[in-house]
Amino acid sequence: MPIVIVEMWEGRTVDQKRNLIKALTDAMVEHAACTPDHLHVVIHEIKKENWGRNGEISIDAAKK
Amino acid sequence: MPIVIVEMWEGRTVDQKRNLIKALTDAMVEHAACTPDHLHVVIHEIKKENWGRNGEISIDAAKK
Amino acid sequence: MPIVIVEMWEGRTVDQKRNLIKALTDAMVEHAACTPDHLHVVIHEIKKENWGRNGEISIDAAKK
Amino acid sequence: MPIVIVEMWEGRTVDQKRNLIKALTDAMVEHAACTPDHLHVVIHEIKKENWGRNGEISIDAAKK
Amino acid sequence: MPIVIVEMWEGRTVDQKRNLIKALTDAMVEHAACTPDHLHVVIHEIKKENWGRNGEISIDAAKK
Amino acid sequence: MPIVIVEMWEGRTVDQKRNLIKALTDAMVEHAACTPDHLHVVIHEIKKENWGRNGEISIDAAKK
Repeated sequence: MPIVIVEMWEGRTVDQKRNLIKALTDAMVEHAACTPDHLHVVIHEIKKENWGRNGEISIDAAKK
Repeated sequence: MPIVIVEMWEGRTVDQKRNLIKALTDAMVEHAACTPDHLHVVIHEIKKENWGRNGEISIDAAKK
Repeated sequence: MPIVIVEMWEGRTVDQKRNLIKALTDAMVEHAACTPDHLHVVIHEIKKENWGRNGEISIDAAKK
Repeated sequence: MPIVIVEMWEGRTVDQKRNLIKALTDAMVEHAACTPDHLHVVIHEIKKENWGRNGEISIDAAKK
Repeated sequence: MPIVIVEMWEGRTVDQKRNLIKALTDAMVEHAACTPDHLHVVIHEIKKENWGRNGEISIDAAKK
Repeated sequence: MPIVIVEMWEGRTVDQKRNLIKALTDAMVEHAACTPDHLHVVIHEIKKENWGRNGEISIDAAKK
């Protein structure tokens, strides 16, 4: 009965999300012994200006 | 001094959200003995293409 | 099909949690038009030394 | 550069977690075009008394 | 190797976010002994109609 | 009125957490124009066996 929350940059297509949800669910079922019926996947799409790594906002990192 | 984070599909009206925030706060005050002054409710509205259950993206489930 | 995540100090009894889960679910069903079957509530119990408000760790605030 | 946060009941072995982290990462790399180096997986292990579904605390559901 | 997730009202400029990401990272490096290379900051910008405090939706509180 | 949630490995001292909460709050006040009174910091301490990066569980990475 788990929940998987994904934080990632915006920009994936619906098809990529469809396949990602399927693959994350399969991973949970196979390795955490979950039943899929109550398994939720929630994707938070984040704008690059709202993400930082190494102290740097991602819109600046992308310019390098 | 709790925080309540709600993940749900987008599409509720402002009035629904207003009542929901009030009711969630009341539940916390009554059953978890919280004082409401420092009690925050944050709603994450999620597009159906960013939610999956049972390995299936919600835009596909809605078609069935 | 929503998820409610509660961040609060540790220390509630099982009975308080039982009632809280019921009341939060009822609030979602009544005000956000959710069906309860796929509605999850997850409680994160936080030690006071892992919570701060107003720049102050809660174990210090509790001493005042 | 994504983050995957898993909320699930406590009780998996270290080997299950090791395989789960690998499989979730592979799913993100294959379907979301992520590079794995900056891909984090964080597992929140939740006690059954801190999880509810359908308005019911999971320790009660398990008894049925 | 930490992650910092910020929930706040929408409306900050890119420059504010740039400086905030830098300052939060510096705080983690100085006080939690983190190396910055694997330190992520993710900002969730929340509309006022999706935030409540003290049982009140923030768009109403702002009117007072 | 923001919330800062920190996900990091367990093991910091109370003094480190005290200083971290203060520094994160100061960063939010200075760069996001927040008033500190309603600013919460919540630390999720994660065991190394519940964290992965680059497809690898952190207890294995630490051995290298």
